[in-house]
Amino acid sequence: MPSTTLTEPTHAIAALVAELAEVAPELELRGAGPGTIRYAFDAGTTPARLPEASGPTVALPTTVEQVQDAVRAASRHGVSIVPRGAGSGLAGGATASTSQLVISTERLTRVLEVAPGDELAVVEAGVINSELNRQLEPYGLFYAPDPASHDISSIGGNIATNAGGLRCVKYGVTRESVLALDVVLGNGELVRVGSQTIKSVTGLDLRALFLGSEGILGIVVRATVRLRPIPVARRTVTAFFDDVASGARALEAITLSPVRPSITEFIDGATLRNIDEHSGTELADRGASLLLIELDGYGIDEQFADLERVLTAQGGRVDIVAEADAPGWWELRRSGRGFPERTWWKGSDIAVPKSRLPEVFARFDSLHERYGVEVSAVAHAGDGNLHPVFSLAIPEGADPATPDPNLAAANQELTEFALALGGTITGEHGLGSVKRESAALELSERNLELQHAVKAALDPSGIFNPGKAI
Amino acid sequence: MPSTTLTEPTHAIAALVAELAEVAPELELRGAGPGTIRYAFDAGTTPARLPEASGPTVALPTTVEQVQDAVRAASRHGVSIVPRGAGSGLAGGATASTSQLVISTERLTRVLEVAPGDELAVVEAGVINSELNRQLEPYGLFYAPDPASHDISSIGGNIATNAGGLRCVKYGVTRESVLALDVVLGNGELVRVGSQTIKSVTGLDLRALFLGSEGILGIVVRATVRLRPIPVARRTVTAFFDDVASGARALEAITLSPVRPSITEFIDGATLRNIDEHSGTELADRGASLLLIELDGYGIDEQFADLERVLTAQGGRVDIVAEADAPGWWELRRSGRGFPERTWWKGSDIAVPKSRLPEVFARFDSLHERYGVEVSAVAHAGDGNLHPVFSLAIPEGADPATPDPNLAAANQELTEFALALGGTITGEHGLGSVKRESAALELSERNLELQHAVKAALDPSGIFNPGKAI
Repeated sequence: MPSTTLTEPTHAIAALVAELAEVAPELELRGAGPGTIRYAFDAGTTPARLPEASGPTVALPTTVEQVQDAVRAASRHGVSIVPRGAGSGLAGGATASTSQLVISTERLTRVLEVAPGDELAVVEAGVINSELNRQLEPYGLFYAPDPASHDISSIGGNIATNAGGLRCVKYGVTRESVLALDVVLGNGELVRVGSQTIKSVTGLDLRALFLGSEGILGIVVRATVRLRPIPVARRTVTAFFDDVASGARALEAITLSPVRPSITEFIDGATLRNIDEHSGTELADRGASLLLIELDGYGIDEQFADLERVLTAQGGRVDIVAEADAPGWWELRRSGRGFPERTWWKGSDIAVPKSRLPEVFARFDSLHERYGVEVSAVAHAGDGNLHPVFSLAIPEGADPATPDPNLAAANQELTEFALALGGTITGEHGLGSVKRESAALELSERNLELQHAVKAALDPSGIFNPGKAI
Repeated sequence: MPSTTLTEPTHAIAALVAELAEVAPELELRGAGPGTIRYAFDAGTTPARLPEASGPTVALPTTVEQVQDAVRAASRHGVSIVPRGAGSGLAGGATASTSQLVISTERLTRVLEVAPGDELAVVEAGVINSELNRQLEPYGLFYAPDPASHDISSIGGNIATNAGGLRCVKYGVTRESVLALDVVLGNGELVRVGSQTIKSVTGLDLRALFLGSEGILGIVVRATVRLRPIPVARRTVTAFFDDVASGARALEAITLSPVRPSITEFIDGATLRNIDEHSGTELADRGASLLLIELDGYGIDEQFADLERVLTAQGGRVDIVAEADAPGWWELRRSGRGFPERTWWKGSDIAVPKSRLPEVFARFDSLHERYGVEVSAVAHAGDGNLHPVFSLAIPEGADPATPDPNLAAANQELTEFALALGGTITGEHGLGSVKRESAALELSERNLELQHAVKAALDPSGIFNPGKAI
């Protein structure tokens, strides 16, 4: 039932809502107002306390046709559209103002087909990542992309950000697990890009364009995703090191060996202390840095033997985690990211060619000295992708909502350092609104021109997600 | 030294050549004439005997700057450009007329950097695929994409076609092994797309657009490619079956098992007989179809045990190939593709969702009955990609250059059958000029419009490779 209780609607929005009530009476709309304030933010931009303000108008389609109706109506009334998945993004890619229409895919949650003989599934965009894997388990199959948010993020959102995750070091990012997409364009038309086959080179790879496009080209409503057999074995391994530098050096030693773990997470000492404080563990007593590794597949004992040799040669203290304890370790990995309630806190998402990771970690002390900011990081080390966290205790009487400018300064310096090492300003979270202005640090003027030309080619009216990504 | 012996130059070409002699005196140019006739064809379109006719004007740059000079001059004189790698393509993507300028990357052959700690190499576009692997071997690394043409095809051409190959079933196609590209655009500007890091989501994935773009968007001059460690073990396995159907069914049995071979080639009986006639082998005596498989990585014995169980359950007679004999088997796989000297001959490159492969092979007999054409195929079966070959003995007195229309008719029917199964008209060879008209069979009108809009966005003057791909 469409809600028509709008607060401060613009004329265009009101007309749009009225039209949708007529042409798509089954489409649930939430009017702009305090009740939709969460749609003004994503997981990376939500303030500790939500403001008492109006959120945008939100459409909650349950069918592809409703998505098309909503897009057509928005297009007719010149209202820009913010496509949104589960809202778990970290770069402000799905945030909307009251003058925009959010089209949320959160109710497009059907797994339409699982075809084990073809190793693929067809899913609606709103299917939650881990829910898909839950449904695939009886088939002995899994969908590999596993962003840390997999319990709350949707396949559509993963596609919009070309999400990485822990296992992408072995299985590739979301792009490598998506074969075809059904996309609603700015005029409401539905178009299929890609192919149901594992290989196809019929025409330009429009599919890849939508992967990581952060909602600026269209709305992905369905995806054909590639599946893989659940490995015959998995083994979780920990290696503690006496300092961060030797742990970071061990990463290169793994690269130079033939072992390719399915997960290689590197956790520095400051993060270990954070985890201990959060979870009551005593990890920091065991070492000043931790490599948390998963091996999978055939020959798990041979793999472990090679890995153990490499890690101990770098001074690592290596242990196999009991199978029952493994989920706990991965849970710890996802926790301990600081104390937003008593510190100013800022997270980032840079990546460097992976041999340069030790240099990045070595920079933290110097940043701390010069900016007074604590810098720590967890790295998807096998990809050279790290998530630095900058934090600073909030002094008595200071405004929690106004962070010390040293946080941004330290972040900026580290980002530029990563770029100087041949790195990127965002490994897997995206540009969104948070890093949009920084894109020019990495991409040449000509590259940016091409980006805009492609955007204009696919979304000529510019209706999708203005002010985001590029 | 520029050649200036032009036969029948158009005015624009003559002016272009004169200008290049001035602005880029070091750039070697071959004037249009009989000496460049091979540039009028590629490996898929070259007639049995080259005609006595003029080929196009050809530029043979040895530096990126020379590529830029050639593009700028062509652009100024309104001469369209055909980018060309080694000319080993099979879809007529790099063929040129006398009114066009071929810019060949065949002399851009430097491996500029190998970075083992980053698992990447930076190469010029003209590096031959197998030559790159020869240079990587001392590092214990390899570049995974291995089109059957790897001894003659270049990385740039592999990029232009997003080449697949045998091992892409495990390691992905060319797209999955290319991180960044340096591309010369239609105005002669050099632009970097992609990132040196394994993961990056800064902006739209322009890199992926160039992968498989068949020279219609720009000229790729350098690539940063991703490398992998040479596996700790490799094992080649043969499985002969009593008929094609049971071999085809074994493919699905592998899919439903946890084993993922690095190569899974399926060779039908007619092809085995061809190979025998070519190579003096007696494969057809051993069975009516053959699965030629490579396993690699850790736990090779465990992998083999699981594979053997699956194959024997489907009636396969399984053998391990002695290591010394393995190269010979892969050589056989590449041979035996018919007898162009005494038959009309047509090859294709379709793919289907892989569980549908048995249906495709089952269709061959019916095509033979109705069109009188022999149909056989080798399949990259793990990808659902197959290369059917249509052949017919040339009757006494018939013109070898005018194939019986039944060849094309049988090919057309099989292509449409593949599409009806959810397949694609080209798995890895590309559209080129050969399949360009067929793209509309697979892609919707709207999809094709988007393809053309993207082409116009990146190559607004339409100077690159008109009449190819889309």
